[in-house]
Parts: sequence; C-alpha cells; structure tokens
Amino acid sequence: MTKQLTVAVVGATGAVGSKMMEQLIKRNFPIGDIKFLASARSAGKSIEFNGKTYTIEEATPEAFEGVNVALFSAGGSVSAALAPEAAKRGAVVIDNTSHFRMDPEVPLVVPEVNRGDLAKHKGIIANPNCSTIQMVAALEPIRAAFGLTKVLVSTYQAVSGAGISALQELQTQSANWDAGKEVEANILPSGSDKRHFPIARNVIPQIDKFTDNGFTYEEMKMINETKKIMHAPELKVAATCVRVPVVSGHSESVYIEVEKETTVQAIFEVLRNAPGIELQDDIATQTYPMPIYAEGEDATFVGRIRQDLDNKKGFHLWIVSDNLLKGAALNSIQIAEAMLEDNLL
Amino acid sequence: MTKQLTVAVVGATGAVGSKMMEQLIKRNFPIGDIKFLASARSAGKSIEFNGKTYTIEEATPEAFEGVNVALFSAGGSVSAALAPEAAKRGAVVIDNTSHFRMDPEVPLVVPEVNRGDLAKHKGIIANPNCSTIQMVAALEPIRAAFGLTKVLVSTYQAVSGAGISALQELQTQSANWDAGKEVEANILPSGSDKRHFPIARNVIPQIDKFTDNGFTYEEMKMINETKKIMHAPELKVAATCVRVPVVSGHSESVYIEVEKETTVQAIFEVLRNAPGIELQDDIATQTYPMPIYAEGEDATFVGRIRQDLDNKKGFHLWIVSDNLLKGAALNSIQIAEAMLEDNLL
Repeated sequence: MTKQLTVAVVGATGAVGSKMMEQLIKRNFPIGDIKFLASARSAGKSIEFNGKTYTIEEATPEAFEGVNVALFSAGGSVSAALAPEAAKRGAVVIDNTSHFRMDPEVPLVVPEVNRGDLAKHKGIIANPNCSTIQMVAALEPIRAAFGLTKVLVSTYQAVSGAGISALQELQTQSANWDAGKEVEANILPSGSDKRHFPIARNVIPQIDKFTDNGFTYEEMKMINETKKIMHAPELKVAATCVRVPVVSGHSESVYIEVEKETTVQAIFEVLRNAPGIELQDDIATQTYPMPIYAEGEDATFVGRIRQDLDNKKGFHLWIVSDNLLKGAALNSIQIAEAMLEDNLL
Repeated sequence: MTKQLTVAVVGATGAVGSKMMEQLIKRNFPIGDIKFLASARSAGKSIEFNGKTYTIEEATPEAFEGVNVALFSAGGSVSAALAPEAAKRGAVVIDNTSHFRMDPEVPLVVPEVNRGDLAKHKGIIANPNCSTIQMVAALEPIRAAFGLTKVLVSTYQAVSGAGISALQELQTQSANWDAGKEVEANILPSGSDKRHFPIARNVIPQIDKFTDNGFTYEEMKMINETKKIMHAPELKVAATCVRVPVVSGHSESVYIEVEKETTVQAIFEVLRNAPGIELQDDIATQTYPMPIYAEGEDATFVGRIRQDLDNKKGFHLWIVSDNLLKGAALNSIQIAEAMLEDNLL
C-alpha cells in the first residue's frame, strides 16, 4: 500500500496553486491529510478541495509541523521566509518560485531530465521556470542522443504566467478593444516594474525586470536554469522572452546546434520515445503545436523540426506546453511522485 | 518644378492598397493623373481618393497606356499577368507581391539598403516581403559598419499581413472568445492552404504554405530576399515565422553575428544615424519597440540590443515596424520617390 502523506499547499488561490490542487486530485496523489496555508490576511477563508471545504490557516513556521510535502507557490519572499522553516520541521519543500533555483544546495529538477538530483536534496527542491521546463524536457533527449552545444530561444509566453490578475487584465483590455474603448494597463510586463503596457493586440519584449547586462531576469533564468538542470555549464544558451496575448501555453522558437551530425528523422525517432514529449510534426497535414490546443494538456509538444540550411548540425524546433501544468503545477507534483518512488519521501 | 506623373493603383481596396493611397497623399507624391484598376468584377465601382471620387477601371493591358508608375498589390497572379504588360507600355511597375522578387532581372529594393539596384530595372521593381524589409533596414547599417555573417530570426507577425479578411476574422474570433462563444477559423494560417486555425488567443507557427524543405514560403522569402537585397549570397540566414494576434506591426527577435568585434554602444551609434531607423532602447525606462506603438508610424524601431553572453561577435535585437507601411505601402512609394530623384522615372 502506498504511503499516505501530509501535504501543505502554500498559495493555493493563485494561478499555479489552483492547478496544483487539480493535479493532486487528477493524479491521485496519496494524500493522508492536506492543509492550505496563506498570509494572515487570507487565513480563516474557506477553500474547496476534492469535494470538501477546508479553512485556510496562517502560514507560520509551526504550521509545517508534521507536514511531509509542502508545495510553495506564493511568491519568492514567502518561500524565502518559510521554506527553510518547513524543511527544518522535516517537510520536503517543492518550491515553484525562483528564490532557491540557483542555490547550489538546492536541486532544480525536471524529472524526465535530472531526476537523479532529487537524492541530493536538503529539504528544498526547486521547480524550474515555466519556459525552461518545457525547453529542457524537449532538448534533453536530443542532447542525450546527439550532444548539444548551443541553444538560442525566442519565446511567445502566455499571460497566465503572470498570474490571475494579468489574465483578468487581458480579458478587460480585449473587451475594451472590441468595444472601441480606452485600454488600460496596470500589470504587465511586470507588476513590480515602473511602466505598464497593454497586452491585448500587442506583444511585449519584457518578462520580469531587467538585469544589468540588458537581459531580463526571465531570460537569465532560461539561460542559467537550463545549464544547471542539464548539468551543462559549458552549454551556450541565449534567450529573448516575449509576452503574447495568449491565455495559457508558452511557445518557443528554438535553434540548437548538436555535436554529432544527424537528421530530422533521427530527431523525430528520439522524441517519439521521449517521456512527456508529444511529437506534432507533419507539414503535409499542417500539424504543429499551438498554445490553444496545448492548454490543459500534460505533454510538451514539439514540431516544425527542420535542419538549418547553412549548418548540418543546426536544427530549428517549435516547442509548446501549458505553462501552468508542465511549466509549473504538473512538474511540481511529478517531483513529489518521483521522490515517493525513489523513497525520498 | 517636379514632374507630374500618371499613377495606376492595382488592388486599391486591399489592406496594402488603401495604405498606398494614404501614402501617396501624405507624402505629396507628384500625381498628375491617377487611375484605379481591378478585376472585371470590381470595375465600375467607385473609390474615394484625396477628396475626389474615381471609377475603378478594369485592369486590362491597355489600361496601362500612358501610365508612368503602376503600383501593384492585388496578388501574385495579377502581377504575373499584368506587370509585364504595364512595363511593355512604358510604365514602371512597383510590385508588392512575391511573384517577381527572386527574378534576377528584377531589382528587389529597400531604398535605404540597395537604392543603387533601381537603375538596373527593366520595367519592374519588386517590393520585398514585409518581414524582410524591416529586418534589412535595421541590419544594413550594422553590416556596413561591422560586417555581418549570420542572421537568425523568429517573427511575431501581425494579422493585417494576411489581408483585411484575416483582420475581420481576428475581430470576430476575439469578440466570440470574450462572449464565450465558439471560435471559427477560415483564413489563417494561409487562405490557400487546407487547414485553418484560430488566431485569437493563439500563435500560429505557419505563415504562407510549406516548401519541401520544411520551411514555409514566408521563411524562405526572408532567407532568400535578405541575401538578394544585401548582395550577400554567402550570408547565413534562417527564419521561423509566426503569426500573433496583433493588428499591425511585425516584431522580430533577431540574433546576428558580425565580422568585427564591436559593442552595443557602437551599434547604438550606428543605428542613431541610420535612415528610417528609430532606436528605442533604454532598459532603465523600459523603452523598447512594441507593435501597438509602431502602428501608423513610418520608422523601423530597434531595441533590446545586447551582446551575446557566449559570443562577443553575437548580438540580439528586437525590430518592430508597421507591416503595412515600411513593410509594404511606404516602401513602395519610397521606391517611386527614389526613382524620381535618380531620374529613373
């Protein structure tokens, strides 16, 4: 009989938190007991889970006593303050924020790519950035088969990655646009940055704030996290991250260079047998991934694979996945499942 | 006194044709006489131009008698049939379709880049593909200063590039989406292809149909036209072309490699002095180009310029321009203006 676990969800009412709850139910995660934690402001409110009503408790250090798995998705500052407290009390924290991702003591895991890193955990596992997860999930099988020297990615990222309030703003802006009314912007590109721009009928080449080198934090996350997850510090990675008016489903135009000469057919074969990957690539039937069809799906979809015309070791790919699922909630639960199977929980 | 010219507009009621008419007026093009030509089906209808009403005439070979400049924007088959007839009668054809672009006898011109090619014309000048024009306009000053060996582009192309009916479909789909109704698709990615997908809340990684090598015609246009316009057959170019739910304004995430080591500051300097280019690049004030702000503007906007972290000769850029203006109508009129100035008309 499977062990029954005590689970805590921190940030259950957010875009990712609510998907985590759905995934726990859908995947029949062995929950003995579950608690929902939030700031003092939200404590006392009710929340529905699997047909029962729970009262949200205040997320204090003591609230993690007796918890086996703590799923954090309530912002970096909450994770910074409370994840170590939860870990200290014996919980395994699976943290969906960026706070611990580059900490050398914290495994950053996509189970299909670097499941082995889970065993090195010291109480906290970081769930990678959404746009990184789907990219490494698709590239790892190619790297394993042919080697990988270079990755250049331009993203087309969905609004749900910026949270529920950003999604509401897209809806309002779009309705106002349709009605010929003024379009207001208060959230994107980044709630914590100074200026805000409409996303309806627009694309915004900024996700998260800028770092000093001219790349945004989102771009640096893709660059640094990819190297860490793939154990490839020498891999050349560059990213341009762009927000597009899509609800859920990040798309990525990716150019890679491999070590050994290969063919599109050989890459097809590798991806057909790769865990979590669904190949959607047939130009005769216009088959390729698109975000509206990826929404709600577990897989990472790959298509438009073609050899570069100037470099036999260069290939172009188009990678799409639901940023709230494989990009966040699903990957978090898969980390917990892998830890259970590997006797780490 | 400037010469007064007889101008013919073929395809005046299309998305590009109507912008051509606006540009002729706005730029005070020296029109002595103007006529509007279309298929027999549209002949006899009225059209307004600069406060006067004109009757659309049938586009027959004879209709081009006495015409100095014929602006074609009515589809490749119309240009194929009638552009040589117009040229034979002494008109200079400026053709906005793809039909003649790769013809070695036909100059393919962005005046800021290869104005000198106009003198080699034999009656037909081709206006390049929209997504190509803005890219070469931004890259030519960089190439001239530092050399250019490689271009990798991922596009975020507006719906108006697919014509007025595609724009109407975006509006209808978006309104239906907002109202929670079924979303139908009948045009994109390509009216002449078999399957159609919604563009509202979606991105479609196909523009135009597929060629046998897995690239689309749009992608091959960007690759081949860039080399032709820049007189750089050895330049490595690759493209992934994607449609996004934007009205007008194509955006491009471009990675380039230059010959001589340089700096972002030196590229800023070159672009500040480049004709037709407006630098919008200041991360401190979140200043970068976006399509909703480029719509209706003549310039090609460039921003997000940063040096690659692995390659000192590698740079990333974000290029945005109104696809109906510099990408089509404006460039066509600029070709006519350059020919006038260079005594080629």
